[in-house]
Amino acid sequence: MEISSFTNNKVKYLRSLYQKKYRRKEDKFVLEGVKIIEEALEEQVRLEAIFYSDYLSRNRRGRRLLDRLEESQIELVKLTDDLLQQIADTVSPQGVLAIANKVNYETQILSGSDRLILIVDRVQDPGNLGTIIRTADAAGVDGIIMTKGTVSLYNQKTIRATMGSLFRVPILKENDLDELLKCLKEEQISLVVADVDGEDYHFEVDYNQAIAIIVGNEGVGPREELLVGADKKIKIPLTGGAESLNVAMATGIIIYEAVRQRLG
Amino acid sequence: MEISSFTNNKVKYLRSLYQKKYRRKEDKFVLEGVKIIEEALEEQVRLEAIFYSDYLSRNRRGRRLLDRLEESQIELVKLTDDLLQQIADTVSPQGVLAIANKVNYETQILSGSDRLILIVDRVQDPGNLGTIIRTADAAGVDGIIMTKGTVSLYNQKTIRATMGSLFRVPILKENDLDELLKCLKEEQISLVVADVDGEDYHFEVDYNQAIAIIVGNEGVGPREELLVGADKKIKIPLTGGAESLNVAMATGIIIYEAVRQRLG
Repeated sequence: MEISSFTNNKVKYLRSLYQKKYRRKEDKFVLEGVKIIEEALEEQVRLEAIFYSDYLSRNRRGRRLLDRLEESQIELVKLTDDLLQQIADTVSPQGVLAIANKVNYETQILSGSDRLILIVDRVQDPGNLGTIIRTADAAGVDGIIMTKGTVSLYNQKTIRATMGSLFRVPILKENDLDELLKCLKEEQISLVVADVDGEDYHFEVDYNQAIAIIVGNEGVGPREELLVGADKKIKIPLTGGAESLNVAMATGIIIYEAVRQRLG
Repeated sequence: MEISSFTNNKVKYLRSLYQKKYRRKEDKFVLEGVKIIEEALEEQVRLEAIFYSDYLSRNRRGRRLLDRLEESQIELVKLTDDLLQQIADTVSPQGVLAIANKVNYETQILSGSDRLILIVDRVQDPGNLGTIIRTADAAGVDGIIMTKGTVSLYNQKTIRATMGSLFRVPILKENDLDELLKCLKEEQISLVVADVDGEDYHFEVDYNQAIAIIVGNEGVGPREELLVGADKKIKIPLTGGAESLNVAMATGIIIYEAVRQRLG
């Protein structure tokens, strides 16, 4: 039996999770498409339910995923192609949506020796946030802290750009900047902030210590409180003609300098 | 007098430049929107003609641009809002399109001491290519060589992502890989290629010499001929869980390692 109606209760619940308010209340979010759901299974993410349509079985990779899901304990709900397409944010959800449970990390991710932490302050573009998370995962950071005003992690564009890294890196949200700065101080984590007016180049910092790197909003950079609270302001040399770098790029360049120093 | 018809000769010419064939034949391309046209004027790009509509004068920045264009020698052609919108690729062309002259660089960009060259082999995504160009410009590379099969530089998405850097970095296309490898050899430019199976980390190379860095296609990496022809294969350490980095990110990380060594 395929569900074809928006008013079905399961469908209503699924649709509610496209709103931030309900994602927060239910501590769940939606995944769209074959690849990211494969990644979620790989990383043992707890999936609540799968909504799929005939579209999914129209290619081999989709059929393989469906076989795997049928062997699992996860609830499977069949929808019409049309309904599924209309629910999804993505243009091609490939006939499959999943409800996933959020993992809520605590500031305990700050504890431990030689932590490498990334703080993302009000980055607006979901593609940028996703790329930052993917790159931070590649670089092996210990955790990412997002401040209030940062674009949603559970935006489909963000999720897609992470390429599955959102399931691997501990990510938490901290709305209170004072609290955040206090925590970092208590854990003796040195704080460097990327800023166009930075005093030192990004490679003039010693990353062989517990350290948090702050990157800020695309237009205005990190907030004043963070600039004031930081131990060091760093910049990436712009030796050519461009006025600035994309924020995800700048983040990658800085965290990979930390990787270089730590491996060297 | 506003032009409202697709069959007007000037409009027909403009529209032809949305096709690669005519861009190549005429050695011209189209710019869309206020910001990139401002950048073009800043960088003394030769503009052939401007097509604008009333939309442009509806905000201060647009009016300022129009004033500046009216004082220039550039031909101004007024279209209806509707027609301009229909011609443009971009969803919001902001009431202004320009025909710009291509600049054709020669392989002479390879000559000179301590060249830092970037070779882009068949990168497919215009956003990636644009970001690569922007980052290479920021890093002060001496030139970019694109191989056959790389997405068009004059795609509106590429142009936008360069943030004006396409007007500043010498960029040339080389279809013949053998010829390219020969040129690099003649100029005694050392060749490193980024590859997931690289032997050395990207920071284990000495960039204080004339050097060309090759980055390849998003899915399959650089072509065999380039891998074989290179002096060194390098990789970026993936110390965390992610399997790969975005190609623009990888490029930025490598060229900024070169910048670090050269400034240090």
